[in-house]
Parts: sequence; structure tokens; C-alpha cells
Amino acid sequence: MTLQTTEKTRSVEEAIESRHSIRKFKQEAIPQDDLNQIFELVRLAPSAWNLQPWRFHLITDTQLKEKLQDAAYGQQQVTSAPAVVIVASDMEDTIKNLAETVHPGLSQERKQEEVANLSGFFGGMSIEERGQWALTQTNIALGFLLVTIQGTGYASVPMLGFEHEKVKEILGLADHVKFAAMVPFGRADDEGYPHHRFSLEKIVKYH
Amino acid sequence: MTLQTTEKTRSVEEAIESRHSIRKFKQEAIPQDDLNQIFELVRLAPSAWNLQPWRFHLITDTQLKEKLQDAAYGQQQVTSAPAVVIVASDMEDTIKNLAETVHPGLSQERKQEEVANLSGFFGGMSIEERGQWALTQTNIALGFLLVTIQGTGYASVPMLGFEHEKVKEILGLADHVKFAAMVPFGRADDEGYPHHRFSLEKIVKYH
Repeated sequence: MTLQTTEKTRSVEEAIESRHSIRKFKQEAIPQDDLNQIFELVRLAPSAWNLQPWRFHLITDTQLKEKLQDAAYGQQQVTSAPAVVIVASDMEDTIKNLAETVHPGLSQERKQEEVANLSGFFGGMSIEERGQWALTQTNIALGFLLVTIQGTGYASVPMLGFEHEKVKEILGLADHVKFAAMVPFGRADDEGYPHHRFSLEKIVKYH
Repeated sequence: MTLQTTEKTRSVEEAIESRHSIRKFKQEAIPQDDLNQIFELVRLAPSAWNLQPWRFHLITDTQLKEKLQDAAYGQQQVTSAPAVVIVASDMEDTIKNLAETVHPGLSQERKQEEVANLSGFFGGMSIEERGQWALTQTNIALGFLLVTIQGTGYASVPMLGFEHEKVKEILGLADHVKFAAMVPFGRADDEGYPHHRFSLEKIVKYH
């Protein structure tokens, strides 16, 4: 099928096909309008029970970026990028905000019931277990973020190789917080490597 | 910024903004070309060390969909959809295929080193621990899948509320396999509910 679009963002196809990990960026600040557009889209990611456990930290301060680069074993892409997103998952904050995540279309009674059910369900798990569970949901938003950054004309590199405890210290985050990724992004000043993936036959089975 | 695109898929913005969980679908089979396009894009999702732990099961068989619906507590959207994707995560299969995931651009020596490092790293974790780790990565691909389905003109509903053990039995999957979601999808025959999300101020912090 063919759809014609004239939008502020690239097509899904173009965004995903053109996305490669980029480790060298142009030294241009990202306009606030573009940042808003990116996060307005990312916040629409779905999560189980609409819990939205994701919390984003957008770092543009040079000294903070240097500290993050230290925490990431000196990987140069961190300070090369005009902006770095830390994609964090905070299940304890999520649990404190259950009433806000329940859909406003429900009756007061149904809302209270839903909050009680969720409190009971997650109350039966350890902080570590439910933190791990929330992290899976935060990674859905990470997928949205990477497509959206690329769709808005920027490039990025999702990183998981950094000292998580150090990053918590740098940003002043609680112990229970988990990280989906550190994502330096900006205008690409490099081409990256070609995609290297399993064939469709390996990853898709028809029933 | 404004980009002009004429592509087979919707813009990232349109895809994400128009995505709502849809539970009633038109009874139209999905052409194989569209399925291929969707999975060709989803397989380009990134993962740590490019491990690609995701394995997709695409179910169109009526009897199998009925069984999946039973496993999903009778939720009608499963049989309403012309196709259901089970987004599975198989870390044990991933470990068996480490040599294939290492980038072909590396020297033979570097490849072997990389495979040895990864084997050592994951060998130090329990099957449950590394399964849980892989599930976080599979959820990145789930994000890509939901955007891509919508970008290709279809609608979906990501579900986590189903009996995972029953679904493993139905599809003949190993015990260690984990699920990111069950995703019924097709042409929407319903509008879904409006988005209900935290404000940007709640989820994005600037540093």
C-alpha cells in the first residue's frame, strides 16, 4: 500500500532504515521545539496498565556530559553529542502515581478498584523484581525514542555499557532506579556501520 | 524542521499520534508483502551487542487464534484480528548464535574474542537472569513493531495479560522462552480511547 505524507517527521520506513549507531555528531545545539516534539511522541508509547515507568533525563551541560563519559568508560560519543538522554525506569515513583495513570474515562469506583489491584499485585513483588518488570516496559519507550529521534532528522547511539551506579550519583537518582540506555544524539557527522541482522527466516515463524 | 516524504509508510509523527489500542478489526487478511515490510523494519531494531534475542510468531490460523484467546482469558480482540504476533524472547537460542551476531567487519580474531567475552558474561548468569535481561532488549523491538504496524496502515493492541505457560504449550516453545507481548493486529474497525499520559514535566528533566 502507498500512503502520501507531508509531515514534520520522516516516514517510519525511512527513519528505521536510515538508523545506524552514530558516534560522531555535529556541534549544533538541538532547538527546544525539536526536543519537545521528540518527547511529546515518546510519551505516547504504551505500557502495561498504562503505568509509564519511564523517566527521561536530558543532559546538555558540558561538565555533566564529561562526567557521564567517564561513567561510560570514556566513550567519546557522549561528549561529541549536543544532548544525551538517560532513559531511566522508576517503578517506585510509578507506584506512588497509580491514581494518575488510571484512565480518566473510568468511574471513581472502578478507578479505586484498579489502584487497589495494582497496589496489591506490585506489593507482592520485591523492589528489585518490580524494578526489573518496569524496565521491560521502559524499553518499549526506548524503541519509540530511537525511531522518533531518527524521524525528526537526528541520529543517536543507544548505549548500555556504563557504570549505572556512577550515573545515579551524577544525576542524584535513587538506588532503585534502573536504566534502559544512555542515548547520545544530535545531527550525524558520521555514517555508522551497515546493518547486520538475522534473516527474517531466523526470527519470524508463521503458524 | 520540515521534511517531505512520499513513502510506503506513514510519518513517524502520524504513526505514533494515531496509535491507540484497537480491539476490533476488519475481517481482511494481511497481504504477505505488508507482513514482510513490517518484519523487515522490525528486525532493524538495535540490541545490546546486537544480540537480537527476539523471535516473532505470526499466527493467522483460526483454531490457533482461538486457543490463544483462551490463554488470554477470552479477550475477544485475539480472534477479531486477522493476525496475532507473539513477541517472544529466546536468550538460550541467542547464546547458541553468538558467532552470527558479531559484526562481519571484525577480524576473525576479534570475532572469537567477542564471542568468548559474551559467553563468559552470560555464562555467569542463571538462565532466568539472562532471560530477563534479554526480555528488556526484546521490548525495544516491541516498540519498533508497534510503530511499524501503525506506520504501515494497520492498528494493534499490545497485551501482556495472558497465561504465558499456556501460550508456550500452544506454540511448542521451550520453558526458558519469555514473552514481551501478544499483539493482535489488522485494519482498525474501532477508534480506541484517547491517549492518557503523564505531562512532559513529569517525565522529562533537563540538566
